[in-house]
Amino acid sequence: MIRLSAALDPTSPGPTAAPGSTSAPVGVFDSGIGGLTVLRALLAELPHERFAYLGDTARLPYGTKSGETVVRYSLHAAEALLDLGVKCLVVACNTASSVGLQAIRELIGPLPVIGVIEPGAEAACRASRSGHIAVMATERTVSGGAYQQAILRRRPDARVDALATQLLVALAEEGLSEGPIAESIARHYLGALFEGGAGSASIPDTVVLGCTHFPALAPAIRAVVGPRVRIVDSAETTACAVRDELSAMGIARASGASEVQYIATDGTERFARIGSRFLGRAILPDQVELIDL
Amino acid sequence: MIRLSAALDPTSPGPTAAPGSTSAPVGVFDSGIGGLTVLRALLAELPHERFAYLGDTARLPYGTKSGETVVRYSLHAAEALLDLGVKCLVVACNTASSVGLQAIRELIGPLPVIGVIEPGAEAACRASRSGHIAVMATERTVSGGAYQQAILRRRPDARVDALATQLLVALAEEGLSEGPIAESIARHYLGALFEGGAGSASIPDTVVLGCTHFPALAPAIRAVVGPRVRIVDSAETTACAVRDELSAMGIARASGASEVQYIATDGTERFARIGSRFLGRAILPDQVELIDL
Repeated sequence: MIRLSAALDPTSPGPTAAPGSTSAPVGVFDSGIGGLTVLRALLAELPHERFAYLGDTARLPYGTKSGETVVRYSLHAAEALLDLGVKCLVVACNTASSVGLQAIRELIGPLPVIGVIEPGAEAACRASRSGHIAVMATERTVSGGAYQQAILRRRPDARVDALATQLLVALAEEGLSEGPIAESIARHYLGALFEGGAGSASIPDTVVLGCTHFPALAPAIRAVVGPRVRIVDSAETTACAVRDELSAMGIARASGASEVQYIATDGTERFARIGSRFLGRAILPDQVELIDL
Repeated sequence: MIRLSAALDPTSPGPTAAPGSTSAPVGVFDSGIGGLTVLRALLAELPHERFAYLGDTARLPYGTKSGETVVRYSLHAAEALLDLGVKCLVVACNTASSVGLQAIRELIGPLPVIGVIEPGAEAACRASRSGHIAVMATERTVSGGAYQQAILRRRPDARVDALATQLLVALAEEGLSEGPIAESIARHYLGALFEGGAGSASIPDTVVLGCTHFPALAPAIRAVVGPRVRIVDSAETTACAVRDELSAMGIARASGASEVQYIATDGTERFARIGSRFLGRAILPDQVELIDL
C-alpha cells in the first residue's frame, strides 16, 4: 500500500485539525471520477472548506455489482477517509448511497454522512409539476429502489419510471458524452418513454440524473427528451445539504481558501485526465495519491 | 468468504484427482464473462476435460486499470484456481495475458500457463496476406504493446495498428452487441482506418479481436470493415494450444464427459444470464459459486 501524504493528515505536524473540528476536511467518496461533479458543487457552495476526495477507481463500476459487494467496498473507502480525520462524509456515488448509507452511518458513528439520493429526490420533487418523474441510474441503484422510495416519501402521488442506463457510465468514462453516439444511446434508453413529445400526460416532465457520471451527458439527453422536460441532478442539492449540516453542527469553516486532496485506488493519470472534465478545473497527475483499499 | 463446493476439490472424497494428474481440472480465468468464448472453444476441442472457470466479476473491467493492479488481481485468481488442484491454467483474458502472464508463471511453478495473446497473434499472422493487421483491444492491452510485439516476432515486416476500443466491452456486457448502436460505435473506432474500402494497400486485411468480449460484436465490426477483411479471435487457436500442451505433458483426459465448475466473485445471476450468451449454452444461476478473492 502506498501511504497517503500528510497534506491533510491531522496527525502530522502543521496547520491541521482534530477529527470533527472546524478545520478538518470534508470527506467525499465515489466509485471513481463521477463524484467530482458533486465536488464541483461543493467547492462552489463551500468555498472555505478543505476536501479529501477518494475515487475507488480500481474497483469501478459499482453499478453492475451486487449490493453486498458495494456495501463492502463502500466501508473500505469510508474507513480510509475516517483515517484522514474527516469531519463528515459525502457519499457522492448514487449506487453506494442507495445500498450502503446505513452501513456507513453505523461505521462512522456520530459524524454526519450525506448521500446523494435524498437530495436528488428532493430536487426532482421540486422540479416536477405533474409528478411524473423518470430516474436514470445504474442497474444496482434502480433494482434497489432507493430513488423510487425517496420520491414517493415526499410525493406519494408521484409516478416514477426508473431506467437502468448502465452503458452511459462507460460512455462518460470514455469521454464520448456528446455527439451522435451519445445521442443514439440516450435514444435507446429514453426513446420509448419520451417519444410523442413533451406535453403528453403520459410523458415524464422531469428526468433525474441518478448517477454522478450523467451530468456530462445532459446535452445528449436533452436532444432526446426535448426542450420542456426538466433535467435535474443531485450535485447542487447535495452541496446545500452538506452546507446546512455543517452549519447545524457548528463545524463549518468560515475563512481560508478551499483545498482538495485527491486520492484514487488506481490510474492516477487517467483520474487526472478524465476527472478534470468532470470537475471543470485542471487536476494534475502528481496531485493524485494512490492507495490500496 | 463463501466456500467453494467440493465438486472439483481434489481434497474431498470421491472420484477426484491429485493436482497435475490427468483427471484434474483445467483452470480458466477471466476478468468476467468474456472468457466464456474461450471456454466454448475449449469444450469443443477438449470434450473429455473437466474445467474450473473463474470470472472476477467483482473487479471487472481489467482493461482500464493499471498494469500493477491487473497483475495483483490476476495472481489472486490464479491462487484460487491453484487451490482447486488444476493441472494447467488458461488466462482467457487478453488484458491479464498481456501484463500478468510472467507473474502467474512464477506463481504457478511447473504447471503450464497458456495466455490468449500468443495464440491470437498466431491466428492473425496466418490469416493476413498483406501483413497489415489491426488489433482491437482494451486500453491496457494496447498500451502494454504485447499484441504488437507478438505479431512482429512472427512477422517482422508486419504493420500493426492497435486500437483501444474500450466502450465495446461495456456494450457486449450490456447485451447490445448487435444493431445500430453497436455499428455506430464500431464505426467510431474503425471508420478512419477502414474508410475507402478493403483492397487499398493502406487498409488492414485482418482484424484481431484482442478482447474476449469482442466475438459477440463481430457482425457490427463486419458491417464497418466490409466483406473482405478477415476477422480473427484467439479462442480457437488458444484451445488448440491447450490441447497440444496437455498432450505434450501427457496429462490429457482421454475419456469421460466434460464438466464445468463456474465460479464468480460477484453477481451469479448476471453471470449466468449474460454468460449463457457468450458460452452458447445455458448456465443456471445456482450452478455459479460465489467466492471472495
